[in-house]
Amino acid sequence: KNGKTDINEALKEFKKFPFDDIGFAKIDTHRNLRKGFPEVIFCQGKKMKHIEGIYRRIDKTSIVMATRACKEVFDLIKKIRNDSVYFEEARIVFTGKKLKKAGPSIAVVSAGTADIPVAEEAAVTAELVGAKVDRIYDVGVAGVHRLFANKDKIMNANVVIVVAGMEGALASIVGGVVDRPVIAVPTSVGYGASFSGIAPLLTMLNSCAPGVSVVNIDNGFGAGYLAAMINKK
Amino acid sequence: KNGKTDINEALKEFKKFPFDDIGFAKIDTHRNLRKGFPEVIFCQGKKMKHIEGIYRRIDKTSIVMATRACKEVFDLIKKIRNDSVYFEEARIVFTGKKLKKAGPSIAVVSAGTADIPVAEEAAVTAELVGAKVDRIYDVGVAGVHRLFANKDKIMNANVVIVVAGMEGALASIVGGVVDRPVIAVPTSVGYGASFSGIAPLLTMLNSCAPGVSVVNIDNGFGAGYLAAMINKK
Amino acid sequence: KNGKTDINEALKEFKKFPFDDIGFAKIDTHRNLRKGFPEVIFCQGKKMKHIEGIYRRIDKTSIVMATRACKEVFDLIKKIRNDSVYFEEARIVFTGKKLKKAGPSIAVVSAGTADIPVAEEAAVTAELVGAKVDRIYDVGVAGVHRLFANKDKIMNANVVIVVAGMEGALASIVGGVVDRPVIAVPTSVGYGASFSGIAPLLTMLNSCAPGVSVVNIDNGFGAGYLAAMINKK
Amino acid sequence: KNGKTDINEALKEFKKFPFDDIGFAKIDTHRNLRKGFPEVIFCQGKKMKHIEGIYRRIDKTSIVMATRACKEVFDLIKKIRNDSVYFEEARIVFTGKKLKKAGPSIAVVSAGTADIPVAEEAAVTAELVGAKVDRIYDVGVAGVHRLFANKDKIMNANVVIVVAGMEGALASIVGGVVDRPVIAVPTSVGYGASFSGIAPLLTMLNSCAPGVSVVNIDNGFGAGYLAAMINKK
Amino acid sequence: KNGKTDINEALKEFKKFPFDDIGFAKIDTHRNLRKGFPEVIFCQGKKMKHIEGIYRRIDKTSIVMATRACKEVFDLIKKIRNDSVYFEEARIVFTGKKLKKAGPSIAVVSAGTADIPVAEEAAVTAELVGAKVDRIYDVGVAGVHRLFANKDKIMNANVVIVVAGMEGALASIVGGVVDRPVIAVPTSVGYGASFSGIAPLLTMLNSCAPGVSVVNIDNGFGAGYLAAMINKK
Amino acid sequence: KNGKTDINEALKEFKKFPFDDIGFAKIDTHRNLRKGFPEVIFCQGKKMKHIEGIYRRIDKTSIVMATRACKEVFDLIKKIRNDSVYFEEARIVFTGKKLKKAGPSIAVVSAGTADIPVAEEAAVTAELVGAKVDRIYDVGVAGVHRLFANKDKIMNANVVIVVAGMEGALASIVGGVVDRPVIAVPTSVGYGASFSGIAPLLTMLNSCAPGVSVVNIDNGFGAGYLAAMINKK
Amino acid sequence: KNGKTDINEALKEFKKFPFDDIGFAKIDTHRNLRKGFPEVIFCQGKKMKHIEGIYRRIDKTSIVMATRACKEVFDLIKKIRNDSVYFEEARIVFTGKKLKKAGPSIAVVSAGTADIPVAEEAAVTAELVGAKVDRIYDVGVAGVHRLFANKDKIMNANVVIVVAGMEGALASIVGGVVDRPVIAVPTSVGYGASFSGIAPLLTMLNSCAPGVSVVNIDNGFGAGYLAAMINKK
Amino acid sequence: KNGKTDINEALKEFKKFPFDDIGFAKIDTHRNLRKGFPEVIFCQGKKMKHIEGIYRRIDKTSIVMATRACKEVFDLIKKIRNDSVYFEEARIVFTGKKLKKAGPSIAVVSAGTADIPVAEEAAVTAELVGAKVDRIYDVGVAGVHRLFANKDKIMNANVVIVVAGMEGALASIVGGVVDRPVIAVPTSVGYGASFSGIAPLLTMLNSCAPGVSVVNIDNGFGAGYLAAMINKK
Repeated sequence: KNGKTDINEALKEFKKFPFDDIGFAKIDTHRNLRKGFPEVIFCQGKKMKHIEGIYRRIDKTSIVMATRACKEVFDLIKKIRNDSVYFEEARIVFTGKKLKKAGPSIAVVSAGTADIPVAEEAAVTAELVGAKVDRIYDVGVAGVHRLFANKDKIMNANVVIVVAGMEGALASIVGGVVDRPVIAVPTSVGYGASFSGIAPLLTMLNSCAPGVSVVNIDNGFGAGYLAAMINKK
Repeated sequence: KNGKTDINEALKEFKKFPFDDIGFAKIDTHRNLRKGFPEVIFCQGKKMKHIEGIYRRIDKTSIVMATRACKEVFDLIKKIRNDSVYFEEARIVFTGKKLKKAGPSIAVVSAGTADIPVAEEAAVTAELVGAKVDRIYDVGVAGVHRLFANKDKIMNANVVIVVAGMEGALASIVGGVVDRPVIAVPTSVGYGASFSGIAPLLTMLNSCAPGVSVVNIDNGFGAGYLAAMINKK
Repeated sequence: KNGKTDINEALKEFKKFPFDDIGFAKIDTHRNLRKGFPEVIFCQGKKMKHIEGIYRRIDKTSIVMATRACKEVFDLIKKIRNDSVYFEEARIVFTGKKLKKAGPSIAVVSAGTADIPVAEEAAVTAELVGAKVDRIYDVGVAGVHRLFANKDKIMNANVVIVVAGMEGALASIVGGVVDRPVIAVPTSVGYGASFSGIAPLLTMLNSCAPGVSVVNIDNGFGAGYLAAMINKK
Repeated sequence: KNGKTDINEALKEFKKFPFDDIGFAKIDTHRNLRKGFPEVIFCQGKKMKHIEGIYRRIDKTSIVMATRACKEVFDLIKKIRNDSVYFEEARIVFTGKKLKKAGPSIAVVSAGTADIPVAEEAAVTAELVGAKVDRIYDVGVAGVHRLFANKDKIMNANVVIVVAGMEGALASIVGGVVDRPVIAVPTSVGYGASFSGIAPLLTMLNSCAPGVSVVNIDNGFGAGYLAAMINKK
Repeated sequence: KNGKTDINEALKEFKKFPFDDIGFAKIDTHRNLRKGFPEVIFCQGKKMKHIEGIYRRIDKTSIVMATRACKEVFDLIKKIRNDSVYFEEARIVFTGKKLKKAGPSIAVVSAGTADIPVAEEAAVTAELVGAKVDRIYDVGVAGVHRLFANKDKIMNANVVIVVAGMEGALASIVGGVVDRPVIAVPTSVGYGASFSGIAPLLTMLNSCAPGVSVVNIDNGFGAGYLAAMINKK
Repeated sequence: KNGKTDINEALKEFKKFPFDDIGFAKIDTHRNLRKGFPEVIFCQGKKMKHIEGIYRRIDKTSIVMATRACKEVFDLIKKIRNDSVYFEEARIVFTGKKLKKAGPSIAVVSAGTADIPVAEEAAVTAELVGAKVDRIYDVGVAGVHRLFANKDKIMNANVVIVVAGMEGALASIVGGVVDRPVIAVPTSVGYGASFSGIAPLLTMLNSCAPGVSVVNIDNGFGAGYLAAMINKK
Repeated sequence: KNGKTDINEALKEFKKFPFDDIGFAKIDTHRNLRKGFPEVIFCQGKKMKHIEGIYRRIDKTSIVMATRACKEVFDLIKKIRNDSVYFEEARIVFTGKKLKKAGPSIAVVSAGTADIPVAEEAAVTAELVGAKVDRIYDVGVAGVHRLFANKDKIMNANVVIVVAGMEGALASIVGGVVDRPVIAVPTSVGYGASFSGIAPLLTMLNSCAPGVSVVNIDNGFGAGYLAAMINKK
Repeated sequence: KNGKTDINEALKEFKKFPFDDIGFAKIDTHRNLRKGFPEVIFCQGKKMKHIEGIYRRIDKTSIVMATRACKEVFDLIKKIRNDSVYFEEARIVFTGKKLKKAGPSIAVVSAGTADIPVAEEAAVTAELVGAKVDRIYDVGVAGVHRLFANKDKIMNANVVIVVAGMEGALASIVGGVVDRPVIAVPTSVGYGASFSGIAPLLTMLNSCAPGVSVVNIDNGFGAGYLAAMINKK
């Protein structure tokens, strides 16, 4: 008996999945693949015609988040789905009925003013998938008193997202003083030997404070989504 | 007796080769250097005047593929060789009589919508050098059911081309379920720690599924050409 | 008024902290810095005399985990604290009264047999800080049916730790099928273009499945500790 | 209706797969997962006790190849399965009945004498999975006449494997003169700026000769296996 | 007793710090955090609205330096604080009463004409924080006599800043002939294998002349500030 | 006796050097620093006002080469020194009386049409400093017969400059068949894993053909100048 | 008149320098090249016979420091110069009359116990060239209260040396709270993505705290020497 | 007519080449492939049995150089060819009649004592292929007076080889003062951010002194051979 044939049989089950194949994309038509989370469309790198095509085929009652969306993308989506709003700093378009915020809060801490777009992507994502969020911005380690002055918000959070470019040391400091999971987001903010985010990425991966994990450079969405996921249970 | 002299003698034979030296390029005037394949001109990095010069000297009955060709290049070629067509998504200009498609089919599988230009470069190339092609797009590993739902096309192919950016894991999954050669094409789609294609390149090179080999980042042409070559014999 | 002076004043508070300064190390004498977690000593790179010095000064009733501990280190600790046990595969020495396991379970999934030491470091750490752990080993993507055959254990876990070297694609597959946080641990298992763990590290950072975060290469301890932390609340 | 549930249902099919879970490894008990290919065990990084455990549970009539196997591993396997032979230069142990060689031949071309272990891994693998192999060693580009003097063997092969360290230019030369697929294997042979195989890896990935694809550094096994796979159909 | 609680207590002291939280930035309202130094705002990566917001809230008598400021930023600041001047080559806006220059002099040595913007950033910074500066430009190692002809200025300086791109060898030469601290600033000037400043960065880090330390690529500000700090005492 | 004082004394000699210090540049006023070579000004990265300043102070009878000069730079120089000519493909402005070509010839060999700007920079430089040059373009290794058909020009040269991007294998082939020094110039031509010239740079550095040395990526000037220098004696 | 001749004349002055050429080394025979500093011999990479040769020719009254010296090197030196002492942790041999400690103090701060050898190299070097040193070890950012509890020693130092591996964040924290120069020393302590010191090196280069400069990985000597140099004036 | 056939015909000529195919190596049996140069065998990475095999088949009167040869290799060769001598520091075995030294001299300049093995490889190679060599060792840029004191030997050389590790700045200094070709050899001497020779490699590639070209890290042989080749004509 041939093992590959068995696998073939097993894989046949997948044929029953009702998704909509529109050539350049395959859209899930059974809603809410992850319970309680909206569908997510990552716009960067996609052509306008493709984004349009996807939105035209998505169920009209579905809840959708478009990330890395410029104003032009928002204008396009707004025409197709009038129930869309734009979070400019976060570059996110949200379409459909807002989820109710519930559960413990998430703290989004950022090192510098230039890190705010990524921090906002994290914060807005977390809010859109149903979490309460506290924002603590511009508390980089060069002025550590600003961080410590905000310790209550940070200490009370169930999950802390730390967004930092340059040397990214903020994640380690925060990881050293809190008892909850820290999600570190390196940003491409910086110049020279920050190498578009490699420096804070390495700093965060090497953090000697336990409880710190890392997502991709500038991946505010991933951090916000994961934080909400930890919160959900 | 001096070895170098012998080599010199041997190399003299090459003098008989009838190619056309136009200074900035040397055009083969004996057609079909590789049996049954068109001549190929890689346009990226070439100046318009050079592309024009080459097309003006190429034999009027020759079959030519121009890759990485923008619309402007197509307009130029069309003026010189009226029997040219443009595959916009694939950025390929084809000139001359189309080859008949023959042999078993090639599956071109892509992870995301943004990978389509590279996937199309592979698919169109394979078709233009005479292969039948099945396209299975937007089946990235984050929604693995989409891939498995298309297993028949993939299982039946003689060669599978997998095109993926970001983390490039699709090549390993496909390599694990098929019995035929998999040609993996990393793409520069992604951001941050994808480092313009280094991440999927490394993923694919390290694939633990036997039967997977890799071409350059974004090299859809190379994958399509190689797949057709495997098919030919 | 001078700002630095204020900071100076604020920092004075830290003087009250009762830790034991033994020159080469500063040992916290108030126990349980993080509630419910043992103290952790990372042994790699530390000299035997330093490890000995630390254990001799630690409170005799404290609960301690020594990670990256070879057999020689265990023998040393055992002499000082008789209530120590050694987890050889995980390279961990545990000293003191075991914590009671509670809360939902954590799944530790590993790609290959050679990844087991790191997977065990994660699993044993999670158990020692009080979590229930399910181990699912040798389910790499080249034989994806082995993974899917174990789906129940993975689907039921509250947190999934994925340990993989080579191309590290396993984290993306798992992230695509579960609804809970995935902590990805790249390992240095592999050769050539795996570059001692860079390949799986990049794969995991670029995972397009939301809910995946990454710790340092071979950092099983960090993953196990974080998973338990997510579980705790 | 919830999509994840559907996927869950589909994945249940995988439960039927008869493999043998021995904790640290999961051994397929239905033989010949890929038709006509032996099972393969990659030994590097595995502990002796694990290799022993796997061999003791493998069906006594199965055909197995152990790669990256030192002499000590062979001695171990030989005790468990007496029908084992050792290919020392290739570091391969073959167990069971040899496959009959069939189909067109594969040429294995290597640049230098120090590349021979990797070249032999490729050649022996191809032979063990049923291919005829021609070896052409020590024909690096610094003495290109040696390569050209062997052109017949190379020109007549159905697939050409090129094994080269240092600058790896041999793959491009061969790719420029043959009409068949070229599988390039960069080796870690070299010093200084070869960076343990990065230099030939990049050379080969950038080859401007169409028909060239690349496997991992020193991955002779992968090249041999893929070549045989291309040959099979 | 719980250690984290103690830390919490200690951190409460930081609450008393009088800074102005304007959401996207936290501005210190007690002046002169570092005695005798102006406040510094790094403009690169900050949005115009954020820079404006910060300047509008800063105390009207405070002394401020804005670095990496283009002309547009200067025009904005000038409207808010009329006592601002622009150092175009150095891309610095200075606002408020100039500090008196005092102490020994600093030599700013640059290798090429293209390094001048970074050299000026260093020189102007040092002057604005109160140091006397000697500029010695275009004395790269390819014409070492130009350097030696200026030896008096260099030998008499209390600190020497060396600014160089390309191969960055100038820092080593200067470090070999002076008895005072050398601050090396690699620049992104160069092409090809200078890798946007990596080459001079590595050169300077490996300098075998003792007394050389390095700041980030193109970080003229950091070098000028540090030089003035060394001078201060 | 103090060593530094001695060095100080020795360095005083350099004070006598008659160069013209114009602040942003130091211009040698004793002509022909290197016997028989023109002065060279590298324009890339220099501001127009600086280039103008330098030309206005240079002796009106001096012979000058400006490299990496765009058309705008030529127009500027032409106004100041009417005896200037522009080599557009090579991006070089030559000012003054042409040197007589003498000595044996230099062969400039390039792999592809896109490498021509760098090849021309090398060829024109060599000619301007007095060498005879043979150009052999578009003879990359994918069509090695084109190279061998031109063997006479290559074999007769005293120095061979090889200009190649992508995989850069051409330098090794040429180095293997000639008896004279080969200067290899990697170019940034290519895409993906050519990493803007790193791939051919590594290939060339690892060339196993003795007699090959390498200059910076795209450094046609350096190769042409060095070739002429070898020729001179 | 020829410029090179002038340079030649100038360089003749250097002939008068009285150093001792022993073939494999050139030993300065006028003592104290840098006023008040001992001569320094870097032993790593030097053969025993070369170290012996150098010591045998050095003036018997000279003050010498040998760095990166293993016990075997000390035994050798001790035989030649009986007035030698060994600092084992710092791997330094000091020969001759100790310099008197003077001037303000230097603080050497280290993150972890494993960083102590590098910290000791810095501390002992600074002491041997005449500085007073305060050691504050094991105060990494994961337990930031330990650092702050030692703030007085750090605040009172004239220069602070920060020694840290892993993520190297300590330098930024210290730089944020002190008003004096910080010399950051990245160490190779760590594993995985610390890449033998690259992670802390990048962290430190990108420090957003002004006043921080960086030396080579593990270069404790360089930091100690520079700190003493800053102190001297 | 088919182009590939023509190439096939041309390549047939190569069949006449009389080399000796011994399986693992192909030995040229017509002596002196390059006129006046010995045959060269690179031993590193070759097994003893392969080196033995090659020497046993080489013509007994041929002149051979074995590079990277340890003492054990010399003992082996000596048994086969009694007319062999060993240059220990250079790790070279020379077999056969010594070539007469002729032509202008080559200067081999090295930065540090630890660079001597590479410098000797260059010097001995150059001498063995017939050049006169001047050695100037231990003249690194940290003590630039030592270099200038030796200027006559350097100025009079026809080619200058510069061997340097660490920051490799010596090549630029020498290139700035001589009128002849400089061959730069980066060495792996150093630690930390020298990255086994990457730092001096980049320094040398970016040298702004024209006339400098670079060979592989530690490639003393290549530099010596090339220098002799430049000298020959």
